[in-house]
Amino acid sequence: MTTLQILRELRRELPAEVVICDPDAMARYRDDASGEPGGMPLAVLRPASVDELAAAVRLCNRHAVGIVPQGGRTGLSGGACAHAGGVVVSTERMNGIIHLDRRAMTLTAWAGTPLQVIQEAALAAGLEYPVDIGARGTATIGGTVATNAGGIRVIRHGMTRSHVAGLEVVLADSTVIDDLQRLEKDNAGYDLKHLFTGSEGTLGIVTRVCLRLKHAMPYTETALLGLRDHEAAFALLEAARAQLGESLVAFEGMWPDFFAHVCDEAALCRAPLAGRQGFYVLVEAAHRSGAGAEGFHAWLSEMLESGRVEDGAVARSGADAAALWKIRESVTELHRSFGPHLSFDIGLPPPVVGHFAEAVAGVLRDRRTLQFGHVGDGNLHLLVAREAGDTDHDIEQPVFELVRQWHGTVSAEHGIGLLKRDWLGHSRSPQQRDVMRRIKHGLDPAGIMNRGKLLTSPSCPESVLEDPTAMSM
Amino acid sequence: MTTLQILRELRRELPAEVVICDPDAMARYRDDASGEPGGMPLAVLRPASVDELAAAVRLCNRHAVGIVPQGGRTGLSGGACAHAGGVVVSTERMNGIIHLDRRAMTLTAWAGTPLQVIQEAALAAGLEYPVDIGARGTATIGGTVATNAGGIRVIRHGMTRSHVAGLEVVLADSTVIDDLQRLEKDNAGYDLKHLFTGSEGTLGIVTRVCLRLKHAMPYTETALLGLRDHEAAFALLEAARAQLGESLVAFEGMWPDFFAHVCDEAALCRAPLAGRQGFYVLVEAAHRSGAGAEGFHAWLSEMLESGRVEDGAVARSGADAAALWKIRESVTELHRSFGPHLSFDIGLPPPVVGHFAEAVAGVLRDRRTLQFGHVGDGNLHLLVAREAGDTDHDIEQPVFELVRQWHGTVSAEHGIGLLKRDWLGHSRSPQQRDVMRRIKHGLDPAGIMNRGKLLTSPSCPESVLEDPTAMSM
Repeated sequence: MTTLQILRELRRELPAEVVICDPDAMARYRDDASGEPGGMPLAVLRPASVDELAAAVRLCNRHAVGIVPQGGRTGLSGGACAHAGGVVVSTERMNGIIHLDRRAMTLTAWAGTPLQVIQEAALAAGLEYPVDIGARGTATIGGTVATNAGGIRVIRHGMTRSHVAGLEVVLADSTVIDDLQRLEKDNAGYDLKHLFTGSEGTLGIVTRVCLRLKHAMPYTETALLGLRDHEAAFALLEAARAQLGESLVAFEGMWPDFFAHVCDEAALCRAPLAGRQGFYVLVEAAHRSGAGAEGFHAWLSEMLESGRVEDGAVARSGADAAALWKIRESVTELHRSFGPHLSFDIGLPPPVVGHFAEAVAGVLRDRRTLQFGHVGDGNLHLLVAREAGDTDHDIEQPVFELVRQWHGTVSAEHGIGLLKRDWLGHSRSPQQRDVMRRIKHGLDPAGIMNRGKLLTSPSCPESVLEDPTAMSM
Repeated sequence: MTTLQILRELRRELPAEVVICDPDAMARYRDDASGEPGGMPLAVLRPASVDELAAAVRLCNRHAVGIVPQGGRTGLSGGACAHAGGVVVSTERMNGIIHLDRRAMTLTAWAGTPLQVIQEAALAAGLEYPVDIGARGTATIGGTVATNAGGIRVIRHGMTRSHVAGLEVVLADSTVIDDLQRLEKDNAGYDLKHLFTGSEGTLGIVTRVCLRLKHAMPYTETALLGLRDHEAAFALLEAARAQLGESLVAFEGMWPDFFAHVCDEAALCRAPLAGRQGFYVLVEAAHRSGAGAEGFHAWLSEMLESGRVEDGAVARSGADAAALWKIRESVTELHRSFGPHLSFDIGLPPPVVGHFAEAVAGVLRDRRTLQFGHVGDGNLHLLVAREAGDTDHDIEQPVFELVRQWHGTVSAEHGIGLLKRDWLGHSRSPQQRDVMRRIKHGLDPAGIMNRGKLLTSPSCPESVLEDPTAMSM
């Protein structure tokens, strides 16, 4: 069947407002926030119901046309990049909160609902949806589930999968899996919601989600601390965990190169601490009542007096706290101000993050780097400036080889998508990847769901998989 | 190949101490704590290493001989029952703690290590492994992972899957999946540990586990409270959640029938409250320091003074607390003292548990029942006395029909195993079961892993699956 015939069929079976095939209108659906150029799709489909979505998927499966599911296209690994000749299925018209149950502390929403809308609805009910990422205004809840989004509060609340109570998913053969029930305990068979969460659209398209909410913790204390070095930061993390316990909600690390770039070179923010520190930590505690603040301030005084912290700026207002967070969240601007670079999202056991960062500086020789991340979770974000003549591989190879040696992961939170796909073997054994392929094949035999993302095709010989240089990206 | 030839091959390929085939020695491996009679296996294999276990599995797979994985055989759904002609693989010789990392707060152990040994090792390091069940001395950590064990602290800490940092699993084709790394964040592909956790040995055999530990909370307050009815208990749960927050670690409910049987009829315990209450709740709070007790006592006084609690007994010592817990934990004796009965493990949204219990009493007519459970998690345990002439189906049919109507689950924590297998369709749609079968088939095409447990065979027509009366158990 020709492209034209498939397009005609899509138009015949779906309402006119669902099918876009004008190249100008499709342009914005080609790529995501990874910077990876996407191909021009055959069509962009914007179903407004599960039935419409299932009809679209059925048709694509019949003709083995690849589907790229898209939420807010804020992903950083190319997982939502379109490919030429494939079809994009956007959830943007499946948008809105369906039900918030204050007693059961759950919220059910359409996959296309922005994360921030979810957060605000929870807050309005005196509750909290604790997953938070910089792209909160654009990222959709379905996209955050498909990628198991992390963010700044993982140390306290876990990744997105910790909050998923149920899912509705449309599979490649258009089967609808309705696993939306909101039971706290349910041992009736395999846990499908955990399988779909973080599968990056390769096993099906999330259409509705049911989330568990938390009691709001509206009283927060925020401080930016200067420390001697990364070892002092990890000792501080242990002290914070032991003394602040579960009120500790964020523990973000910034290396001096990051801080200098943001506050001096690019002058994106004003430095709140005088002089230059060996390491910076943004720490936040949250409580359900105002009484909790005392413990935080007592702890901080103790850390300063005992010399475990060199210097510190404590927020005295919401505006102060926002100014401190602005330093850490200047990452979006930074991607521009730092010039051409490659970006990494490495996961390691928390105690070794600082040592890894030293080792990586060694293998990268004199290349400029910026290092920061959710160090409390062992998540290091690393930006490496390209030098003239650098290929991606010149930078990726030494970094990922180190990740392999240190038993880390090539993606702590951004996912594998397209950009990390050929490096998956550095964190997952051939046996693990084979199990993933067997699951993928069982649920999507024609391989239409986000084809070429996360896993290389089973027909691709393993020897090629092992050597990323042999792959064309 | 004949049975004798397979036995000979097992003996040739495995060390003598691994293979048991004397019927007397095999007798205790036939069944588990479900009361379901198991068949006499061909052999019981007790490998002491992953290599030995993989060799055993490889041989069974070659001859399509079914394998029943066994831990401590404390399961209540028949998941560990042997079948005639199959092979039992016991993990009892893969026993011991491999490593406890105090800084990283993780513990790695062999699958056959008893749960209590894990708990005690964690405590000795000032930490805590919070999963706790009555069978702690016998249940193995591998078995609790394979069944995603729940227990009395789920309300605070979640089920077993919340604590699994990594797993090593041997698949049906003897592939070893080493997913033991202990990263806090890792988005590199499908989350296999969540897939294996709770799969009841149908996808592979867990050989090693890495667990996340918590800071110990050695200061506990325990109280047994008498309330007007189940609605008062649910209102109390909401008040406890709101005011005690995360110090609330247990909220166990007992209906008057349970209490009367344990304290009066069977006289297993002394009643700590005078008179008869409409509902009983055992509540426990835990803290990392002694200062936390004040909040609990203040909350309790408020509940008593406002009339939300009718009467209460507060533990003043560890011995007091143990006496209160003994009432709730008299379940083992109760299974004997109550006479012939069927036992249920139903999950529901917490607010409706009490109403469901009323409805179930209605459909069971005049049959004697005992009702208790982890009501804070929506988990109702129900014992129904058999009457003369009662078949299992006479009791199961009305109860599970109600579960289906109320959108509950036929198993909140005990798993599906053999006993709930033919009722899985009351909680899982044909589409969900089909996805489970596709995953099972992808990982175990010959269907050797815990054959006939959890899922009926794919060759079994769906119409039969839908009608449990047509199945022979």
